[in-house]
Amino acid sequence: MSGLVLALAQVKSAVGDLEGNSSKIREYVQRASDAGADLVLFPELCLTGYPPEDLLLKTEFTRSSMAALAELASGIGDMIAVVGFAESDYDVFNSAAVICKGAVHCVYRKVFLPNYGVFDEMRYFGAGNRNLVLDVSGTRVGITICEDIWFPGGPMEEQVARGGAEIMLNLSASPFNRGKYDYRKKLISSRSMDGPVVLAYCNMVGAQDELVFDGGSCVYHPQMGFIAKAGRFREELLTCEVDLEQLKGNRLLEPRFRYSRAECPHAEVDVCRLEKPAASAGRRKVPVQLCPTDLSLTEEIFEALVSGLSEYVEKNGFKKVVLGLSGGIDSALTAAIAVEALGGDNVVCAFLPSRYTAGESGDAAVELAENLKVRIITMPIGGIFAAYAGELAGELGEKEEGVAFENIQARIRGNLLMALSNQFGWLVLATGNKSELSMGYCTLYGDMAGGFALIKDLLKTQVYEVAEYVNERAGRELIPRFIIDRPPTAELRAEQLDTDSLPPYDELDPVLEAYVEQGLGTQEIISRGFTPELVKRVIRTVDANEYKRRQAPVGVKITPRAFGRDWRMPISTRRR
Amino acid sequence: MSGLVLALAQVKSAVGDLEGNSSKIREYVQRASDAGADLVLFPELCLTGYPPEDLLLKTEFTRSSMAALAELASGIGDMIAVVGFAESDYDVFNSAAVICKGAVHCVYRKVFLPNYGVFDEMRYFGAGNRNLVLDVSGTRVGITICEDIWFPGGPMEEQVARGGAEIMLNLSASPFNRGKYDYRKKLISSRSMDGPVVLAYCNMVGAQDELVFDGGSCVYHPQMGFIAKAGRFREELLTCEVDLEQLKGNRLLEPRFRYSRAECPHAEVDVCRLEKPAASAGRRKVPVQLCPTDLSLTEEIFEALVSGLSEYVEKNGFKKVVLGLSGGIDSALTAAIAVEALGGDNVVCAFLPSRYTAGESGDAAVELAENLKVRIITMPIGGIFAAYAGELAGELGEKEEGVAFENIQARIRGNLLMALSNQFGWLVLATGNKSELSMGYCTLYGDMAGGFALIKDLLKTQVYEVAEYVNERAGRELIPRFIIDRPPTAELRAEQLDTDSLPPYDELDPVLEAYVEQGLGTQEIISRGFTPELVKRVIRTVDANEYKRRQAPVGVKITPRAFGRDWRMPISTRRR
Repeated sequence: MSGLVLALAQVKSAVGDLEGNSSKIREYVQRASDAGADLVLFPELCLTGYPPEDLLLKTEFTRSSMAALAELASGIGDMIAVVGFAESDYDVFNSAAVICKGAVHCVYRKVFLPNYGVFDEMRYFGAGNRNLVLDVSGTRVGITICEDIWFPGGPMEEQVARGGAEIMLNLSASPFNRGKYDYRKKLISSRSMDGPVVLAYCNMVGAQDELVFDGGSCVYHPQMGFIAKAGRFREELLTCEVDLEQLKGNRLLEPRFRYSRAECPHAEVDVCRLEKPAASAGRRKVPVQLCPTDLSLTEEIFEALVSGLSEYVEKNGFKKVVLGLSGGIDSALTAAIAVEALGGDNVVCAFLPSRYTAGESGDAAVELAENLKVRIITMPIGGIFAAYAGELAGELGEKEEGVAFENIQARIRGNLLMALSNQFGWLVLATGNKSELSMGYCTLYGDMAGGFALIKDLLKTQVYEVAEYVNERAGRELIPRFIIDRPPTAELRAEQLDTDSLPPYDELDPVLEAYVEQGLGTQEIISRGFTPELVKRVIRTVDANEYKRRQAPVGVKITPRAFGRDWRMPISTRRR
Repeated sequence: MSGLVLALAQVKSAVGDLEGNSSKIREYVQRASDAGADLVLFPELCLTGYPPEDLLLKTEFTRSSMAALAELASGIGDMIAVVGFAESDYDVFNSAAVICKGAVHCVYRKVFLPNYGVFDEMRYFGAGNRNLVLDVSGTRVGITICEDIWFPGGPMEEQVARGGAEIMLNLSASPFNRGKYDYRKKLISSRSMDGPVVLAYCNMVGAQDELVFDGGSCVYHPQMGFIAKAGRFREELLTCEVDLEQLKGNRLLEPRFRYSRAECPHAEVDVCRLEKPAASAGRRKVPVQLCPTDLSLTEEIFEALVSGLSEYVEKNGFKKVVLGLSGGIDSALTAAIAVEALGGDNVVCAFLPSRYTAGESGDAAVELAENLKVRIITMPIGGIFAAYAGELAGELGEKEEGVAFENIQARIRGNLLMALSNQFGWLVLATGNKSELSMGYCTLYGDMAGGFALIKDLLKTQVYEVAEYVNERAGRELIPRFIIDRPPTAELRAEQLDTDSLPPYDELDPVLEAYVEQGLGTQEIISRGFTPELVKRVIRTVDANEYKRRQAPVGVKITPRAFGRDWRMPISTRRR
């Protein structure tokens, strides 16, 4: 047969940890070898971690990346390993090194550099301007990196049409958002058909600050469809035997390119000749791996939250987290996910009631903590509040009403959580959701305080969806029904309800989604059937609260547009 | 004579305020006309404000910019106005419109898009790929936008060598940092000599969030040097009569370009023919304007802080600010600059002593407030602290020592300031400096609390320099000598000094400058003569405190690299 056995190393990597990432790569090269693979593919920038952000501006860092690559290469035998790294030359490049028998044989430089959304790749990288194919014992293999295959044509076209590539490798670090996995599968099949080529897509897993990488690596065959699929949100070595016989001479699989030499920006494609590892000849039959089922949108959000939190905690040297339980849905969901990510022993809850906290809020918080088997600390804030009110009476008067006094309560809670954090080294989880953060319905240094805002990118309606899923998954009401059913309230004054200050969430959230996530304007949203009053009120309020969001902790990106690196709005603006 | 009378409208503009900016432009067109100018030049993106950031991703916004331009053009008579705007076509462009007699006659699109430092222009704009010169009654005038002239060659070369431009206009919005003005002058003279062309450089003034625009617009003549120079940090209409006779046939002024058609990316240069305004023929002689003296580095920092604060306050709808006075240098300088920017009536100070506050700290705070003629509110924090300690005793013990209890004090102060803010609508100024923020020697939600961190980009040693200048400028010790001379202390425990936790500032600050501002690595800094222990300690500490900086308020960018849009470091990193 004509073909290769590929191994896709769907691994985590840690930003800046060249040594740890090198160990991980060596481990997976060995595993690929043991599995009888001819070639093992790693994710984009696997050696440096992704995204390294401004570390890439430090010459010392990019030079270290080069040294780490040389060191890594020297320990690799006859396995062919394709490894993402930051290449330091006359400029810095987002590159893939082809390593075999102790040496880097050739390097491919990413051509299409994303510079939108969370991506700033033109800030850091020069664009590649050469193309490359590997000739592995007669099989032609092309190499692309992430964005290179997100558009038709480009480097893949050149490698196929001029370099004769039959298999196309893609090294990716494609950040998760809800629904992107499905889109990516369509993209991969489209691009495979364009060739036609067998497309092997290796994506990162794990998380870095606000980004989660969801894996889902796969191999797509233009006739057979997905011939191998890895799981998601977990490390995995995906192996796949690629048979190219069927691809050849099939008249239904003509290249989709309309290609002429004159239009080709890089007329030459370098060919790098390598041989299959000697050991692979006598290998055992490689089993087909197909991830059993896909996840629902709610399931993948849940998995992303778990992954994002556990990685943040681990990478930043924490063991335990602490959060305030209010008896409401946001803190309940945050606690439940924290327990899933870290275990009940590593989650501490604090119930911090005021005079406005309903008795049933306390009951609910206690019941939740019992369900989750986590410790709950209770500290009433009334005494501290009285001390503030007393000190402020001279300036603010005796009435103890209004936003100043509401916020003091939230800030006392923030301070108590931070005191526990300072004393015991626990990470404080902020519990606010995206609807609140959009509308500024949250208190700076109060409920916004914390090192990680786990659910900051979930609209309130999505908070409910994921909470229901948590219960469904547990097979019981882990989050008490009362918490899900009660009307949302901040409990900062008597008989307060969120709807005193905000439109009902089922009206608010679709407008927020249109404005924040889809980037639509006032008239465009109104034309979708929302009332002008609602739309204008929401947009005005979102714009006016940018200063709060700018001081919010990071949290897991779940949507196409989170309040993080992909949201760069001015604070000062007089837009109408 | 051959030549033109130019007017450079060095104006403020407000991000998103299309209507207000249009009025400002109309006002300056009229003033230029009254001054007898033939052509009036405005800054880059003057119509939308700069930088509009993600507003540019909203189709509704860029379409409004187009509509505002058309509306603006319809009101303009025979004056030739060159106006920066966001152009919406098949892509969005950073463009200059040439307006005359009620119509937009032609448009130039910026070619070189900066995508480093604070700039993300490749996120928003397509690059221009056409060139243009104006023929104004026989005088050839080229147009470039900001970055276009920061490199040799490029669009300017084409307009001169192929389009015959004798005068080169440049529309800029070049953010201030210390020393950049001097660099810019050298750049302008270099580029003018390259032509040779008379280079008319119109820069924005005012401020937007963390950026200040310092003006300093000018006209440079390759033989005569600066023939007109505007002031800095203030609006101004700079007029200048450009005589081109001397430029012609001078053998010492050969073009520096080594230019051939084959190398030229845009072989064609469009020519747009216009006529001088009819009125300008009988005009009065235009006086030469030369800004009297340049500012020292310390003076320009002072001016930038004043400008940055007053614009932030005004653009965000505040009137008054409040800040905590500790009796230390940082809060003293912040207060003094706030008074300069807003007037003493609009600055409220709060003295918030604890048991660790020295009596002389209080005396110093009171003396400062008297010198500045500002109101001072005193609220001791001991009672509130006792309430916290009591509530936390069960978890943290009775000892009331350690970082948890130190931070509680800072956070009580933050909360009291925020309560005043919430009640009265005052903007809270955070008073921390860059040395503290670099080293994490500051308390989240405590001294870091506020809407604007005025001096966050000043190293401690620069804080002293500017404080001395404030006194020198006042001709008396506005900031009491005791405050300048005392050893820095946070006063969060007994006999605490900054040097308990930090290297002395005169050792620390040069390492911070090398690491943060110049982006050097460990070995590079050590090779400059610092001890390895110091350098490693500083870098480790800076890296570990990224999470704090991510939640800091915005403040005025003063250095080449501030902790703002130009600092994008990962929080999670295991770099060694």
